[in-house]
Amino acid sequence: MIKKYLHIMCYVTLGFLFVTQTVLAESQFQEIMKKRGLTEEDAIAALKVYNPSGKHDEYYVFVGGGQSGQVLVYGVPSMRPLKYIGVFTPEPWQGYGFDTDSKEVLRQGNVRGREINWGDTHHPALSETDGKYDGEYLFINDKANTRIAVIDLKYFETSQIVVNPIFKSTHGGAFVTPNTEYVLDTCQYAAPLTNDYYPIEAYQDVYRGGVTFWKFDRQKGKIQQKESFSLEFPPYMQDLTDLGKGVSEGWAFTNSINSELYTGGIEKGLPPFEAGCSRNDTDFLHIYNWKKLAQLAKDDKNIKIINGHRVIPIDVAVKNSVLFLVPENKSPHGVDVSPDGRHIIVSGKLDTHASVYDFNKIMKLIQNRDFEGKDSYGIPILDMKKSLYGQVEVGLGHLHNTFGKEDGTIYSSMYVDSQVVKWNYKELKVIDKIGIHYNVGHLEAMEGKSADPQGEYLIAINKLAIDRFLPVGPLHPQNNQLIDIGGKKMKLLLDMPIPLGEPHQGASIRASKIRPEVRFIMGTNSRTGKPHVGKTLAGQEKIERKGNHVSIYATVVRSHINPERVTVNKGDHVTMYITNVERAQDETHGFTIDHYNVHTSLEPGETTQIDFIADIEGVFPYYCTEFCSALHIEMMGYLLVKDPNKNYEWIQKTKMQSLSPEELQMEYKKIRASNKATDEVIQSLFFFLEEKNYTKYTTVKNLVDDAKDQYAKIDLEREKSAKAYQKNDINNAILFENMIWQYMIKTADSAIRAKDLLINNIATPKSESAKKGEIAFREGGCSGCHVIGKISSGPDLIGVLKRHRNAEQWVAEYVKNPQSKFNEPFMKKMIEFFNLKMPNQNMSDEEIKNIVEYFKWIDENADLF
Amino acid sequence: MIKKYLHIMCYVTLGFLFVTQTVLAESQFQEIMKKRGLTEEDAIAALKVYNPSGKHDEYYVFVGGGQSGQVLVYGVPSMRPLKYIGVFTPEPWQGYGFDTDSKEVLRQGNVRGREINWGDTHHPALSETDGKYDGEYLFINDKANTRIAVIDLKYFETSQIVVNPIFKSTHGGAFVTPNTEYVLDTCQYAAPLTNDYYPIEAYQDVYRGGVTFWKFDRQKGKIQQKESFSLEFPPYMQDLTDLGKGVSEGWAFTNSINSELYTGGIEKGLPPFEAGCSRNDTDFLHIYNWKKLAQLAKDDKNIKIINGHRVIPIDVAVKNSVLFLVPENKSPHGVDVSPDGRHIIVSGKLDTHASVYDFNKIMKLIQNRDFEGKDSYGIPILDMKKSLYGQVEVGLGHLHNTFGKEDGTIYSSMYVDSQVVKWNYKELKVIDKIGIHYNVGHLEAMEGKSADPQGEYLIAINKLAIDRFLPVGPLHPQNNQLIDIGGKKMKLLLDMPIPLGEPHQGASIRASKIRPEVRFIMGTNSRTGKPHVGKTLAGQEKIERKGNHVSIYATVVRSHINPERVTVNKGDHVTMYITNVERAQDETHGFTIDHYNVHTSLEPGETTQIDFIADIEGVFPYYCTEFCSALHIEMMGYLLVKDPNKNYEWIQKTKMQSLSPEELQMEYKKIRASNKATDEVIQSLFFFLEEKNYTKYTTVKNLVDDAKDQYAKIDLEREKSAKAYQKNDINNAILFENMIWQYMIKTADSAIRAKDLLINNIATPKSESAKKGEIAFREGGCSGCHVIGKISSGPDLIGVLKRHRNAEQWVAEYVKNPQSKFNEPFMKKMIEFFNLKMPNQNMSDEEIKNIVEYFKWIDENADLF
Repeated sequence: MIKKYLHIMCYVTLGFLFVTQTVLAESQFQEIMKKRGLTEEDAIAALKVYNPSGKHDEYYVFVGGGQSGQVLVYGVPSMRPLKYIGVFTPEPWQGYGFDTDSKEVLRQGNVRGREINWGDTHHPALSETDGKYDGEYLFINDKANTRIAVIDLKYFETSQIVVNPIFKSTHGGAFVTPNTEYVLDTCQYAAPLTNDYYPIEAYQDVYRGGVTFWKFDRQKGKIQQKESFSLEFPPYMQDLTDLGKGVSEGWAFTNSINSELYTGGIEKGLPPFEAGCSRNDTDFLHIYNWKKLAQLAKDDKNIKIINGHRVIPIDVAVKNSVLFLVPENKSPHGVDVSPDGRHIIVSGKLDTHASVYDFNKIMKLIQNRDFEGKDSYGIPILDMKKSLYGQVEVGLGHLHNTFGKEDGTIYSSMYVDSQVVKWNYKELKVIDKIGIHYNVGHLEAMEGKSADPQGEYLIAINKLAIDRFLPVGPLHPQNNQLIDIGGKKMKLLLDMPIPLGEPHQGASIRASKIRPEVRFIMGTNSRTGKPHVGKTLAGQEKIERKGNHVSIYATVVRSHINPERVTVNKGDHVTMYITNVERAQDETHGFTIDHYNVHTSLEPGETTQIDFIADIEGVFPYYCTEFCSALHIEMMGYLLVKDPNKNYEWIQKTKMQSLSPEELQMEYKKIRASNKATDEVIQSLFFFLEEKNYTKYTTVKNLVDDAKDQYAKIDLEREKSAKAYQKNDINNAILFENMIWQYMIKTADSAIRAKDLLINNIATPKSESAKKGEIAFREGGCSGCHVIGKISSGPDLIGVLKRHRNAEQWVAEYVKNPQSKFNEPFMKKMIEFFNLKMPNQNMSDEEIKNIVEYFKWIDENADLF
Repeated sequence: MIKKYLHIMCYVTLGFLFVTQTVLAESQFQEIMKKRGLTEEDAIAALKVYNPSGKHDEYYVFVGGGQSGQVLVYGVPSMRPLKYIGVFTPEPWQGYGFDTDSKEVLRQGNVRGREINWGDTHHPALSETDGKYDGEYLFINDKANTRIAVIDLKYFETSQIVVNPIFKSTHGGAFVTPNTEYVLDTCQYAAPLTNDYYPIEAYQDVYRGGVTFWKFDRQKGKIQQKESFSLEFPPYMQDLTDLGKGVSEGWAFTNSINSELYTGGIEKGLPPFEAGCSRNDTDFLHIYNWKKLAQLAKDDKNIKIINGHRVIPIDVAVKNSVLFLVPENKSPHGVDVSPDGRHIIVSGKLDTHASVYDFNKIMKLIQNRDFEGKDSYGIPILDMKKSLYGQVEVGLGHLHNTFGKEDGTIYSSMYVDSQVVKWNYKELKVIDKIGIHYNVGHLEAMEGKSADPQGEYLIAINKLAIDRFLPVGPLHPQNNQLIDIGGKKMKLLLDMPIPLGEPHQGASIRASKIRPEVRFIMGTNSRTGKPHVGKTLAGQEKIERKGNHVSIYATVVRSHINPERVTVNKGDHVTMYITNVERAQDETHGFTIDHYNVHTSLEPGETTQIDFIADIEGVFPYYCTEFCSALHIEMMGYLLVKDPNKNYEWIQKTKMQSLSPEELQMEYKKIRASNKATDEVIQSLFFFLEEKNYTKYTTVKNLVDDAKDQYAKIDLEREKSAKAYQKNDINNAILFENMIWQYMIKTADSAIRAKDLLINNIATPKSESAKKGEIAFREGGCSGCHVIGKISSGPDLIGVLKRHRNAEQWVAEYVKNPQSKFNEPFMKKMIEFFNLKMPNQNMSDEEIKNIVEYFKWIDENADLF
């Protein structure tokens, strides 16, 4: 009996001990949670979104930057912002709009000759292959100025902007066909398609909507404007669009908000647009076949030319049976085609019901020419009930949809209810609801609008943040919320404030699908992807003058600009070509000339051009604007602008001390000795790296390549130094030796980083116990005297487990009670040598055990210290 | 004996049970950690930085946006970005540079007549009182274009820009005196102080550095340019500055990088600046007394006027014993005065040693006129050794410092070593080092440069990110890293990529010290803080024409713009004043006119002005650019620009269907009924809110105020509707009723949010068990049929614990085995009523116990559902 109890006791005690260990960390968790007021659900969310240093996110999300005119890229699940890509708004960090090459892109967006310096970006679209995201290009529209931009995801730079030639407002873009043949952009607020004035009374007659099909050439990475065309729509104020896929490939769907054809007039005492546009119970979903339209557009007899652009009129589309209408609940917002292409879901913004249309039913009605009538513009109208698959009550203010991984799963945003609703559009039932903060607009489950939704996470792109974040004045950030959709119920994980602009739609893609470059082929114009006319390599720097046009061919490298002094005449047109001759990842340089409103960012291998008229006289420093090395501040030069019509008189007055030949010799010897010592450090770094086969680790190799690249520059400086010394020009010999030292420091900078990274890569993994031992070693006071791999105030501890018989036990006893070993002969000698006795750090047995494990790990990796 | 064992067993078992409970959550933690590859240290870091929805950060950090020309605000410890404040670069989201009022601020930054559209922001400085941050103003410099901006932290908007009248480069700003009497900005690259050309050979004679003292008037919130002055320095290329405090108040310290007076020349085969500027072993720390200089500057005999600006020449400063030099290790970067003002720490960028100067020793040398000599410009030089408190070997590439809470604690950045080093500047010893990723520039412990450092957290503002984040092309984000400095050892907590620009310095402040406004007094010009000349209230909207100048006084409110149609002549100058008449927090509207390159952001209560020449003919939609309500898309109007020299001919062609009087009556009745029903919902919401004393909760009250504000607008619409109906204008009566419905939806939108928030505020807190019960209830399938507070597919469960005798046990048994109760008379009736039998959801005993706890919580809060 007692035996049995004892047996159980042992079992329980073992379990208890095991639990105690885990509970140690756990109790730390609980302590922090208590201190920070976190519930268990909060802690779980924290663990689901936290990326420790260096861990990459699983998805990229691209969101339109709204009124900032940019595109924001962030990572999921950490929600951390990665980049604002300059698109429609000049952005000096990227040099966008401040150097000549990027200006050429930005100015493609001029509208009727006017420079437009911002955009209202709404709906980013990723390029698709078979309806799936392929990670090559991103398209984004500008609602205010009717433009589409192309972003090349190799470089994350805007490479093209096209202006819509006929619309005065475009909201429903960008949307791509399943193989990115066309990028669609839909008119929103109707207006005459020409550039003429017509009074508001001509709304029904002359104002028109429509959709533009921008032809995309994937090889060239450019929209082909001449091969693009538009389809005319009635002035129903079209809203969003989606493209068919699978069974519905070839078709497109666009909804509308003003089938009332209301024209406002609050200033005359009439009800405003918002009342007039939402009067009717239904508006119209536009259904059209883009594949057939593309065929039609090729034949001149089917088109009108407006502002030089090919437009298919409504009657031609009707005659060719490629345009139909079906009623939809009034003033809807989003329309979304299911991943298999059969269901078309229309959000009922002012109705609590979502409508699911059945593509098969629609096709049947069209084939049977079973119409309920025609609208005033002659377009056949399908019967709503006959077209519907069904309706579901989802909530108030339903704006948008995105699809989940499981068949039939859809997530919808409820603006008024401030909820995300998960439902099944096949079974027509609501599954789950979650409150968001606050007023959600678009939402995006991962790849949720593609033919291959990934589930896992969902982003709620909310319009109001109100009290969620620290206040920053009357203009609040937006709140993008991450929701876990991997389980049965949706769970809120994280709020991320958006610090600039109001994102509308988001487009997400699995990280592995994007493969950006980290450097350019030397001398590339990043905006064209081709060699730059001003490509300049080290040694090719020059200044050329033709009349009053001065061309400067410059290079930048850590940490100098060549040339360092440029003198021009007031009024000269100056063109400066600058090449960043670095190869190292992230070794960006920036360039500006003070007071001249030019700036450019030069990524490794890139050449850019800046142009300006030297119209103000004086002395203007130029400098590198990207902190590129310890000597960054010294990376500068002077633009001197003199007035050719002025006489400049100046007599040297200041007397400077100069060094004696002996002093110069002494300085020369000193710098030579310093360089020799530094070189020895570098050689030992290189030796370590070679010995450990650094080439096996790509990132390490890149850093070593960079270090060697810097080191290689020393030869030339050594020659210059020797030459100067031979000419007895000790002054300059000293300076060239100084330059050698600079290159050495840059070499060491990269090599030290490479060594650290290599150690991380090749050290054996620490056991949990060894990890804890390291912490105890660092925090318990040991590291005050002991430095691993070095003799410091105490002995090096590499091999400590080999120094004593029964060493693990010996070390444990010694740490527990140092005094007990002071009389051993070896220890006596140590105490004498270091003139120090190890103090008792009052470690627990557990800590001592862990420290021994840490020492074992050290011995395993002794060659790395 | 057995008894004793039993006793122990009980004890152990209880302990075990207790542990098991905690381990439930723990095992979930471990599972996620395993899945996501997180160590225990990672998990601890995650918990330390995670803010659940609505939890505010503890500190604001302001970092210069670098080449983006903006200021970025983020929160600590979450590191989440809160706002990019437009400063030197136009930013359309904020309307900055796109509306007339903000252009007036931005254009104060024109340099010699040239529009400058970017800046290179470096060092933000918070306003101080007694050397401590007071949270009123932020100052930021532009290195490239020699400007200082003032940001008013009431609104987080830029309110002033001043241009340096004499310098051509300013890096060492902004730094404030301990009571913000002056904002200091120091010249970097020397140049003639006039605007004239001088050849590089005149460097020693004519080129100069210096420091400008911008007089700040705290009452007006503005720099007073006429009361500002500068001190001339030799052309040593001054770098950073810090102000004395405590014992050293009145003094300032500025270091330099080119005491060699080197002038470059790589284009002529000479060594570059980086070699020449770092030749000497020492440069000069400039020591000067700003209080005495401010006195001197008042007397005309002490100053030269250059470009209209008062400048104290070097010789005057020397004669008055207010300017001294002391050697410092060559080419240092940061200089920082300790919180008590006695120690001045200079970073040894090219030296592994940090130098600590002793202010008392410096003062003694000055008082004794104990100089080692004079420089070429006549400035007395103090002996370095006699001035030093001591030196410490800290590492390679030491750039900057920030101070900790504990006496003597300082943190330094090592650019080359990629480390932050914690050391003690009083005891002159290194305490701890931590590796960062990679190449740290500035660093900021919380309020670490003030007289009252707060410790807790430290930000490493790194220059290179390399492999830390998902790749985004050749231009990488920067990496700002959060480090926990609350414990004995520094611990890395979080990496945050900076998506735009390269931050240099950061300034942090405890969140409670900043008290921003969330709305403006109605009709305020946010850039001046005063009533706007164009202030327009609802009902005051009008269009005025004087010659070819058209003035439009407009209002915006959810969701219409008044006026909705504006016709002007081509060539007219149009001024539009727009007032956002909302009171609700975060109810921002934006305004643009398509193709006219104007945009403004209108926060609640704000009036702004836009100006343009209507120089292109046509029809241009204008719209609200901030998604402000479910009817946002409908918030639009038309600008019609007609050419007065053209004849427009147009004959109405399109025939529209119109409704019969009977149909109109039917529609009228329908909308009236709909409004009545909606109003009932609203009344029930208001009733609930009143009953629960909503006014006690500020945020709730704000939302209800907003709801009532919207609701109040209904009266006028009702009048309009009635009037139209009396005139038999049923068409417009319908539309006005529609408008009533819109206001009701907006009322409901706010009221629903208010109700949810109120419930969160007043519900009793759930026990841990009740929380788990709610999850089990939701996830176990109960919520499929039961909705709390409503009869759904199953009965309402409020009061379920009162419906049965011995109810807790009854409910537990029923959930465990529903079948067992189906024959009870009450249950028979229920099954009949709902035509449904409750299924067995296979809950565990633990889950059932928790669900019962959840039901108890529901009953406690029954009145909230």
